Amino acid sequence: MRIAIVKETAPGEARVALVPEAVTKLVRSGHDVVYEPGAGQAAEFADAEYEQAGAQPRDDVLTDADVVCSVQPLPIDQIRRLPAGSTTISFLPVAQDLERVAALRDAKVSALALELVPRISRAQSMDALSSQALVSGYRCTVVGAGMLRKFFPLNMTAAGTVQPAEVVVLGAGVAGLQAIATAKRLGAVVRAYDVRAAAAEEIRSMGAKSIELELETLEGSGGYAREMTEDRAQRQRELLAPYIAAADLLITTAAVPGRQAPLLVTREMVEQMKEGSVVVDLAAESGGNVEGSVAGETVRVGRADVWGGSNVPSQMPSPASKLLAQNIVNLLGLMTGEEAALALDFDDEIVDGAFVTHDGVVRHAPTREALGEP
Amino acid sequence: MRIAIVKETAPGEARVALVPEAVTKLVRSGHDVVYEPGAGQAAEFADAEYEQAGAQPRDDVLTDADVVCSVQPLPIDQIRRLPAGSTTISFLPVAQDLERVAALRDAKVSALALELVPRISRAQSMDALSSQALVSGYRCTVVGAGMLRKFFPLNMTAAGTVQPAEVVVLGAGVAGLQAIATAKRLGAVVRAYDVRAAAAEEIRSMGAKSIELELETLEGSGGYAREMTEDRAQRQRELLAPYIAAADLLITTAAVPGRQAPLLVTREMVEQMKEGSVVVDLAAESGGNVEGSVAGETVRVGRADVWGGSNVPSQMPSPASKLLAQNIVNLLGLMTGEEAALALDFDDEIVDGAFVTHDGVVRHAPTREALGEP
Repeated sequence: MRIAIVKETAPGEARVALVPEAVTKLVRSGHDVVYEPGAGQAAEFADAEYEQAGAQPRDDVLTDADVVCSVQPLPIDQIRRLPAGSTTISFLPVAQDLERVAALRDAKVSALALELVPRISRAQSMDALSSQALVSGYRCTVVGAGMLRKFFPLNMTAAGTVQPAEVVVLGAGVAGLQAIATAKRLGAVVRAYDVRAAAAEEIRSMGAKSIELELETLEGSGGYAREMTEDRAQRQRELLAPYIAAADLLITTAAVPGRQAPLLVTREMVEQMKEGSVVVDLAAESGGNVEGSVAGETVRVGRADVWGGSNVPSQMPSPASKLLAQNIVNLLGLMTGEEAALALDFDDEIVDGAFVTHDGVVRHAPTREALGEP
Repeated sequence: MRIAIVKETAPGEARVALVPEAVTKLVRSGHDVVYEPGAGQAAEFADAEYEQAGAQPRDDVLTDADVVCSVQPLPIDQIRRLPAGSTTISFLPVAQDLERVAALRDAKVSALALELVPRISRAQSMDALSSQALVSGYRCTVVGAGMLRKFFPLNMTAAGTVQPAEVVVLGAGVAGLQAIATAKRLGAVVRAYDVRAAAAEEIRSMGAKSIELELETLEGSGGYAREMTEDRAQRQRELLAPYIAAADLLITTAAVPGRQAPLLVTREMVEQMKEGSVVVDLAAESGGNVEGSVAGETVRVGRADVWGGSNVPSQMPSPASKLLAQNIVNLLGLMTGEEAALALDFDDEIVDGAFVTHDGVVRHAPTREALGEP
């Protein structure tokens, strides 16, 4: 089948859905790969590398492709140009993007939303949320280390000892654990909190201290946390306040795809932080864990500089794209039948869960309901 | 005696010569400490902290102080206002600053240049070049990690392995070793080179690989390297070129105080680096180890972003000031006699080496010669 690689057009998007290394694998599996010239440029992959890997340049990759791969979902005018029966693979935030889902349905396109790949063991290698969270988690500690005007590690010198930085991480999913690991590597004292009981052990296994609050834990499905009552949230903020006031660097990573991020830290709590302290809010795009954070900007709250993340994986587009591309290659492997042709098996839990639209129907039940369909 | 803390006026200087913690120690030793309001502000030390430590605010700290402490040397108009017989402690790049040395001599001021404190064991705790180099070395790796759009550590994920960053460090003095240590902590593969034979073992003790070139080594005095012939420099550049071409991040730290930094890396060598590579030149202020680097700016050379350091310790002013202040407290301890009065013993190697002027005479021989004095 013919697989197309799109050049991203969304502002700030530097990744590419398939990197040259992935093209090599797909060509070896018998697929035909076409790419828009410049598709990998922002992620540091040259057109020459795509050609060497066996992909063909095309000015219009949409009209005769079997599978169109992109990072961001295609614009609606491009969706309308896709042949009926073709497949798209991309991130697709269905709850916030009903109009686009309707366009995909009407174009009779089979649209896979990377966010909807189930979080089961067998799908780990296809989990783009995890692979991109890994990049974000590393990046937010590096950004924090750059903003903090202090050492991370303890330094014992001839002229005395410099104390290590105190880092607090809220949310210990993939991104949070990677943020913890990176801060520990750099020698900081790290404390972390997550509402899920299982997280405490993972936090400790990274060498960080788990903040234990006398509150019920909130395990949800797919490794994510459940939403909490406002009462519990209020009590949690009160109990976390002294930890945050003592931190040099606060990193917040509590986000659940498709939902508003929980407000973990109020402006009042940030105002208790010391002169020169730094806050990195990875959830700024989905409403923010920290009151006052702005996605893509650094703002001053009290005596702290507060950085709001905006498409953080695009700040490391080359490794982010490599991991994402491998996720997509693995998904394509699952969806390919004999003679390298597409064969969607909706009895497979992964295929069943990840496809939002197929053959003129919205398959994803919550989205179908949101669209007012029966 | 009365010790004065000056508010720095040089652009970009965020440090302060004495921090509140140091004031506490000096007051306990029986000294009287005065400070200019706002002296510690840029380094995150409030006036209230100075007062709590026992220092008195003064609008004019110069006219009746016994010892005036500053990071940067005083402006000439301020030197002229110092009482004869008073002492100044600061950085003072004598070779580049003859006019100021003459003003200090004419004002009959005893001026200590922190750069001239001998690099002997007994003076380690007074070595401000080392303490500030420690800050710079850490900082330049953090800056490099922030600029590099890749992971430092190896990452083995469900979606495959991401290779660690390749970091090359040139110059393995205090700053270089700290840069190496920080890059190793963050998980990079680090290779380093220094012209001094003794450096190879220190490089390896940090867990980095020592680049061995078939060239004579150049041990100088005080732990610094000797200058090399242009022939050797040319051969060294040829041998280093393939290591630099393979690096994701190049950090150069080869500087000898008071001298032009050696040109280690030509523009041609940087042009061999990969798309997305990063160069951090800590020596940019003293001429640069890397051709084309500009102090205080990031410029593009070939496919690399080249960052030139400018007063790098001021990017971490709080820890840099703490270490510097402890160096100065230790120097003051050495220079204080009975009843907390200044007692300069020029028979002491440290005092003898560090004082540039005293009692109307330029004591530092090379500076005296440069001034055309007998």
